[in-house]
Amino acid sequence: MIIDCHGHYTTAPKALQTWREAQIAGLKDPSIVRSKGTIKISDDEIRQSLESAQLKFQRERGTDLTIFSPRASAMAHHIGDATVSLHWAEHCNDLIHRVCTLYPENFVGVCQLPQSPGVPPGNCIGELQRCVKELGFIGCNLNPDPSGGHWTAPPLTDRYWYPFYEKMVELDVPAMVHVSSSCNANFHATGAHYINADTTAFMQFLTADLFKDFPALRFIIPHGGGAVPYHWGRYRGLAQDLNRPPLVELIRTNVFFDTCVYHLPGIELLLKVVPVENILFGSEMVGAVRGIDPETGHYFDDTKRYIDAVTWLGAEEKRKIFEGNARRVYPRLADWPLSLKNRTLGQAH
Amino acid sequence: MIIDCHGHYTTAPKALQTWREAQIAGLKDPSIVRSKGTIKISDDEIRQSLESAQLKFQRERGTDLTIFSPRASAMAHHIGDATVSLHWAEHCNDLIHRVCTLYPENFVGVCQLPQSPGVPPGNCIGELQRCVKELGFIGCNLNPDPSGGHWTAPPLTDRYWYPFYEKMVELDVPAMVHVSSSCNANFHATGAHYINADTTAFMQFLTADLFKDFPALRFIIPHGGGAVPYHWGRYRGLAQDLNRPPLVELIRTNVFFDTCVYHLPGIELLLKVVPVENILFGSEMVGAVRGIDPETGHYFDDTKRYIDAVTWLGAEEKRKIFEGNARRVYPRLADWPLSLKNRTLGQAH
Repeated sequence: MIIDCHGHYTTAPKALQTWREAQIAGLKDPSIVRSKGTIKISDDEIRQSLESAQLKFQRERGTDLTIFSPRASAMAHHIGDATVSLHWAEHCNDLIHRVCTLYPENFVGVCQLPQSPGVPPGNCIGELQRCVKELGFIGCNLNPDPSGGHWTAPPLTDRYWYPFYEKMVELDVPAMVHVSSSCNANFHATGAHYINADTTAFMQFLTADLFKDFPALRFIIPHGGGAVPYHWGRYRGLAQDLNRPPLVELIRTNVFFDTCVYHLPGIELLLKVVPVENILFGSEMVGAVRGIDPETGHYFDDTKRYIDAVTWLGAEEKRKIFEGNARRVYPRLADWPLSLKNRTLGQAH
Repeated sequence: MIIDCHGHYTTAPKALQTWREAQIAGLKDPSIVRSKGTIKISDDEIRQSLESAQLKFQRERGTDLTIFSPRASAMAHHIGDATVSLHWAEHCNDLIHRVCTLYPENFVGVCQLPQSPGVPPGNCIGELQRCVKELGFIGCNLNPDPSGGHWTAPPLTDRYWYPFYEKMVELDVPAMVHVSSSCNANFHATGAHYINADTTAFMQFLTADLFKDFPALRFIIPHGGGAVPYHWGRYRGLAQDLNRPPLVELIRTNVFFDTCVYHLPGIELLLKVVPVENILFGSEMVGAVRGIDPETGHYFDDTKRYIDAVTWLGAEEKRKIFEGNARRVYPRLADWPLSLKNRTLGQAH
């Protein structure tokens, strides 16, 4: 079985974006009462949005289950306040739940959080709990920079984040460290901000004792771990210079990288330097790069092909990357898909 | 001949740092008249600071010439104003010039710039010109984020930077894109801020037409290009999705990566994906990582060993990386070292 740990609903029906645009437009008029309101999307619209994209690619590429979350670049936690983020997150998560209910064999949910700049992340506990307990989600996307490229929040290792981590541990769900769009002209979203955030988070984890305080806390660093595997020697050396534990020890049960690296030499490097136990298959499909690589004739983000092509990696190791590690990192996968089959959005609310 | 394009004077005699600390302390008292003052360092102190470090490593590792600049993390452009930065840059550059005068065979200078947050980089033209014309320097370090981790300046592709680029082109000197220390708690300097800046700059170059406006402008992106070679497929795909030229075309005569990647698999990846013409040997010695790799028994930053170990790279290709490319990117190397031999700091001023 092949589990893709990194998929976003980038193809959601237009009504979702229309609602968001109206919400943002409403921010200009303080007399407008902010309400969650409703979004009308039919089951058929959802089916159409997936059949020609994520589901088609799952079939073509031979992957089975996608751990699915709202479009990351659209989270835009820097817009509005915590209420704005909550309404938006609820809608996005509800839609993911409908996807998972319509296609319980193909998708399992990971939630967007109602983060907002300057608001302690404890405010996200309610939505995390709702998504996990009521909607059957198995994890969340945690934005280390809700300001969208200004990096005004404390590092992920600061006690500021601890109340949220306590809930993650209690619910036994991991977080993917995932920023959203950038409102800083220096940072292209998918080409710089995403990758920088991955690198930044890793170095924060390296320099602090977060996992002594939370031995069961688990993070997935997406996009192949940012720059980290390429600079694995630098990070091993920095850990040593700073009297920190060896990297392999430091990340063992707490930090994981996905395989969203869009060429074979990059994937080979990842597999060479990072312990196989810390790598989860992911594609970010449909996401950052949508084209076909003229050098291979295949989609850049068809990352399964790269892993398949690595002949020196054994079958057991590949099984860990494709399935086993995901089951360890997302233990709530054990309930999937039976619990979802018996659940509908109506019952869950 | 082996030219190391990336060395900093991280071992400068204490008097330099003492002067800087007094300068910073003086900022608290507005009644103090800001003056450049003098720093007393003897030639013997300079010799000692190098003989046990950079010169020793040059000999041990078999490299010949280091393109040498002031300690990058100490530039700290975010401290004080443009005058503070100018006095500090002048002292640092003068000291580099003394190094190059004492050891003309071993070092050639690259200058620190008197950048300051909110001050257009045109203010750095004078110091660049002084260093190139009077001190025989062959390039500069350009900080894309003088705010030290808050990223408040416009992207490097903005017209804000153009007056400075005009002078670079006129003098025929390249810039290494190099941030300094971080005053943002999110970013560890050498483990996150440096690498992020490299990735950020590359994506800025990818998305703009800077090199149409300045066909002769040349940048070295240090630390192996940040995350870029590891994500070469992602960047090729983004360029394609954004209707930009292919990466190889985009960087051909304008963007170069050094080899400051501290393990063999990383160096192999760099050499596999980036055209050999765009790679310059560099070690960042003595710099970010000072320890010995327990896996190899050699210094992490002895990057020559990794390149030597790549058997599939031909002698001619290695010659380009070790020398030829540096001579193309830093054409003023053609004057080295004769011009320096006839010059002293006294005459130059």
